[in-house]
Amino acid sequence: MDFYSLCDAATHLKMYPVFDVIHYTMMCLNVKEDVQKSDGDSIVPFPFSRQHPLALWFSSMLMCFASQIWLALLFNTPLAAVFNNPDSILIASAVWYVVNYTPADIAYKLLSFKLFKLIISCMKEVHRVYGIHAGVILAYKKYPSQYLLQVIAGILKGAEGEIMLSSARFIIGLFRPRESIFLFPDFVLKGSTVISVLFVLRAAHIIHIEHTIVFSCSIAVLIYLRISMMLLGTRDPFLPFENLICSVIFGGMWDALRRARAEPVNGAITSEAKLKKS
Amino acid sequence: MDFYSLCDAATHLKMYPVFDVIHYTMMCLNVKEDVQKSDGDSIVPFPFSRQHPLALWFSSMLMCFASQIWLALLFNTPLAAVFNNPDSILIASAVWYVVNYTPADIAYKLLSFKLFKLIISCMKEVHRVYGIHAGVILAYKKYPSQYLLQVIAGILKGAEGEIMLSSARFIIGLFRPRESIFLFPDFVLKGSTVISVLFVLRAAHIIHIEHTIVFSCSIAVLIYLRISMMLLGTRDPFLPFENLICSVIFGGMWDALRRARAEPVNGAITSEAKLKKS
Amino acid sequence: MDFYSLCDAATHLKMYPVFDVIHYTMMCLNVKEDVQKSDGDSIVPFPFSRQHPLALWFSSMLMCFASQIWLALLFNTPLAAVFNNPDSILIASAVWYVVNYTPADIAYKLLSFKLFKLIISCMKEVHRVYGIHAGVILAYKKYPSQYLLQVIAGILKGAEGEIMLSSARFIIGLFRPRESIFLFPDFVLKGSTVISVLFVLRAAHIIHIEHTIVFSCSIAVLIYLRISMMLLGTRDPFLPFENLICSVIFGGMWDALRRARAEPVNGAITSEAKLKKS
Repeated sequence: MDFYSLCDAATHLKMYPVFDVIHYTMMCLNVKEDVQKSDGDSIVPFPFSRQHPLALWFSSMLMCFASQIWLALLFNTPLAAVFNNPDSILIASAVWYVVNYTPADIAYKLLSFKLFKLIISCMKEVHRVYGIHAGVILAYKKYPSQYLLQVIAGILKGAEGEIMLSSARFIIGLFRPRESIFLFPDFVLKGSTVISVLFVLRAAHIIHIEHTIVFSCSIAVLIYLRISMMLLGTRDPFLPFENLICSVIFGGMWDALRRARAEPVNGAITSEAKLKKS
Repeated sequence: MDFYSLCDAATHLKMYPVFDVIHYTMMCLNVKEDVQKSDGDSIVPFPFSRQHPLALWFSSMLMCFASQIWLALLFNTPLAAVFNNPDSILIASAVWYVVNYTPADIAYKLLSFKLFKLIISCMKEVHRVYGIHAGVILAYKKYPSQYLLQVIAGILKGAEGEIMLSSARFIIGLFRPRESIFLFPDFVLKGSTVISVLFVLRAAHIIHIEHTIVFSCSIAVLIYLRISMMLLGTRDPFLPFENLICSVIFGGMWDALRRARAEPVNGAITSEAKLKKS
Repeated sequence: MDFYSLCDAATHLKMYPVFDVIHYTMMCLNVKEDVQKSDGDSIVPFPFSRQHPLALWFSSMLMCFASQIWLALLFNTPLAAVFNNPDSILIASAVWYVVNYTPADIAYKLLSFKLFKLIISCMKEVHRVYGIHAGVILAYKKYPSQYLLQVIAGILKGAEGEIMLSSARFIIGLFRPRESIFLFPDFVLKGSTVISVLFVLRAAHIIHIEHTIVFSCSIAVLIYLRISMMLLGTRDPFLPFENLICSVIFGGMWDALRRARAEPVNGAITSEAKLKKS
């Protein structure tokens, strides 16, 4: 089996059921860990999962089916269609139950093993790229010439959970307007954006790379970044580019210049201060 | 007039206008009492109704037409259709006006009489069962095989006000994320769920009881529970079942076992502690 | 050029691109000033625009395209259609960039000049009246007999930014449920309501004034009020009518009477107290 056929195989995986289960697991874990963090803050007095199973379930389902909800809103299809596949809700509920209510929290402890966590995180990245592709294609079919819309559909599929997190938190009684994804865009949002743009450019025949290559490379890069972030503790790999863009486009340079003009002698100190600041 | 024809009569009541007016009254009272509670908390410094009639009206209308809004969102029909029947908005506005602005608050004082409150509460339960039935049937016609969706449509019609309450509160400037219906499901939500499930099972020919019987029994049970709650001060009648389910399914038993293992001698004390806790 | 042809000319202005740019500018300024106010409150520690360009952009776009979003929700057209005109998003983004990121904040300082601010405020009022008219006509075409709906569509187009402000604030991490437009309706909301009602009455052939007259008078009055508010510092010109209505309809009179009855001798003092209160 050569490299190309490996790539080709990577573009023809079946999401249902294994990858979907992985997706649901990650989403339920997200909610669970969010709750535990605030348990520690003593905002929520009791083990939350024992007290409010309904809110926990609803919140987890919102996260699991976030992309369907976003696309239903964007393309004006009935929200009711989310329930068209009752199997998926059953599976997601089962996952939710296992993550939260196994005796002695054994499932959660298993999922917290570094190795296991690494594997499901990587599989989730595969699921993410499939999602982004599905979103872009869906938008492309409906609005072939709306590139921006296609990118947005891709982002909504790729970073579904991150964008839904505020709402899911609200359901479980946590309200943190200062932690939204728009204020602090994370690795997932930025990665989804880049990959969406790639897919859109390819669909619009602006770049001429084979689909198989773009698709499998996206998966490979996301997995590589995820592993390096988890094992080596590297921070968001987009951060250097972001700092560069921010300082060039979003006023950082001008601010530095102004500061330099204000105190023209010790410019070195100012640029140090700028570095510290960014 | 025998028992069956009484039941039959109960299934052929006209909601418009009497029961609709009762429904609007209950919803406006909900908002008014919510505001008064926070008036006492001195969050809102003035008589709110004198200062912010627009917010109060909008909030009350949201509550009165909550079910139409929920179903419009679920089935993707235009929100504009809520205004298709301007009469109902006029009536609801009139009710809102009477509840909030009669001289010396005389209407509110009348409605607060125990007997009067009992009667309108019971009539509201009749309205609720009709709503649940309408919701289930609507979903059944559009998606005959989606049982979960039908149940949800029923719940959204039955517990419309309770689910809308967070949004209605938000409009009047009260924000209490820790008091949402999902964190603390109340009698109405649970009752609506049970009745929705019954209607769905009947519509799906899984249980074979006559419609008239299911329908009128639902009304009777809801009214009975409501009266016992109001007169005898009994708390939520679903609580025992809920505690049972929670301890069996949602980890209560395992937690107790773990605690018992941790201190194996005085198990009796632990189970007492458990009882106290639940 | 006589008076009538001047009026006629005022009804045939092209909104695209000049007035649209003015509209975007006002909306971006709104968001920027909102952020700056809270910068002063030291809620947001840093120059917000340097730290969170994404949130700022998203928030500004929400404001710029508020009316499209509201009408898409009301008439159940896809939100995706907002992106149908990518040019407008590009233009709005360019405006957003200029308002927030010009070197030394020069664009903002220019826009803050009183004269300049006056001109763009007046042009925004022209844009507003065109928006209200478009909203009313759109609703009239879809639902010719729903007067309430037509008024609401007009209001949503006219006071789009004011109604969207809470959501836009939420995106940038400001959450102020006690400052919503419903609690404190402002000049824009009231003016839009009055003009919407006029347009609806005219469209329904209830009042028989020529369209040109209604339209250009609306513009003239809004501009006149805006100028007098900005130059002379007069407060909301609707306030006297509002106080009158509130005291007659919304209980003010009854409250005064009750207070007068409670202390029947010095009624003069009570009415003074009432005046002070209102």
